[in-house]
Amino acid sequence: MASTADSTQDRIVAAARDEFARHGIAGARVDRIAKAARTSKERVYAYFRSKEKLYQHVAAAELAAAADAVHLDPADLPAYAGQLFDYFTAHPDRYRFIAWGRLELAPDPSDAPDPSDTPGPSDIPEPADTPEPADTPEPATALEPVSTASPYRDAILGKIETIRRAQAAGDLDPAWDPVDIMAVVSQIAHTWLDQAELAAVARRAADDPSSSARRTAVIRAVAALFPPAPRRDSRPLRQDS
Amino acid sequence: MASTADSTQDRIVAAARDEFARHGIAGARVDRIAKAARTSKERVYAYFRSKEKLYQHVAAAELAAAADAVHLDPADLPAYAGQLFDYFTAHPDRYRFIAWGRLELAPDPSDAPDPSDTPGPSDIPEPADTPEPADTPEPATALEPVSTASPYRDAILGKIETIRRAQAAGDLDPAWDPVDIMAVVSQIAHTWLDQAELAAVARRAADDPSSSARRTAVIRAVAALFPPAPRRDSRPLRQDS
Repeated sequence: MASTADSTQDRIVAAARDEFARHGIAGARVDRIAKAARTSKERVYAYFRSKEKLYQHVAAAELAAAADAVHLDPADLPAYAGQLFDYFTAHPDRYRFIAWGRLELAPDPSDAPDPSDTPGPSDIPEPADTPEPADTPEPATALEPVSTASPYRDAILGKIETIRRAQAAGDLDPAWDPVDIMAVVSQIAHTWLDQAELAAVARRAADDPSSSARRTAVIRAVAALFPPAPRRDSRPLRQDS
Repeated sequence: MASTADSTQDRIVAAARDEFARHGIAGARVDRIAKAARTSKERVYAYFRSKEKLYQHVAAAELAAAADAVHLDPADLPAYAGQLFDYFTAHPDRYRFIAWGRLELAPDPSDAPDPSDTPGPSDIPEPADTPEPADTPEPATALEPVSTASPYRDAILGKIETIRRAQAAGDLDPAWDPVDIMAVVSQIAHTWLDQAELAAVARRAADDPSSSARRTAVIRAVAALFPPAPRRDSRPLRQDS
């Protein structure tokens, strides 16, 4: 059995995941998390220092859970997309949790001027031109963007390297930049989670409104872009979490 | 020249767009909107009743602006994806504005139990099984989900019908459900806006980290799925906003 201290931490993490999924980071209340975890605000801060650090901690656990559940086989990207679809369709709260961090921790493109002085320019430089934050410890008051969190970055770089090797081995079209393959496949898999407003319309307008029809379309789109490589029996299954 | 009343409303809408894009709906402060619009909180509420109604009003204006800027030609979906990419890359604040509404106004999948009583179940029924809200006036305290806002729904249904006609005319593969075509093309176009955390990694890991390389990949992916139809000179350009 886990120690009492571990159990409290586990309950805080579970309660925080629910609270963040529901209300986002800015909207989350540490007193609600403490109550749901049957502990005190003071204990939460003793373990995790700040609400933002708590989010980062839970995010790392969520990424690890997703990586455990969904394996990237670069020779069968349609199957990978199907697994992503299944995982987050079964756990919409986990997708919502991640989506808040993407939005709330992303660099604000209109953050250059002092918001209290000007309403902000309406035309903003392209995000691709924004310099990436350096990997130095952030000031105590700043949120740590998910994009610079090491476990996430390392997981993504590992997947990109897996794709690059599959291209070199002839399993995937080498004309694509591996980062575009990674991004487009994930993006297609999340079509119906990201476009909830279109999904509501689809339930009326689709020829077949079932979730399995949406899943089939996701897999079909990825298969048209990146057809599975023929299996070579002598080769072990490639898996990379 | 616009009347004084119109100008005040226009300034409120512009200030609200910036405030919502930056802080989301829950995080937006009407006093900051009023200050940026050089008016009072009372005037803001007199015009728009509530912060949520103000968001809905600005969202309708934003959808109209996007529809004006980006035309759907079903015979050339790669070009449509390129236009979507260009529009929101030039206006990341507008994409952020929409993204907040998707997240904050979406039905919360864990909202069934009373959140103050239970931490919430971890396994939730699929969202596709959730009944769609009826088109009746919402109670005064509830947010109106974007999914049921009529101008949005009408715009999407119009685009879906345009795609259906193009399939019937032989310009698009009829084996796809038109709602899947609509959703997958939009989704691919927004790949790098939705995955800001992957974009940060891509700036280091990509073979070519430029924004134009990302744009090319988006168009290439859509072209592989839905190749442009050959132009028939006798046919007028199809455009549907």
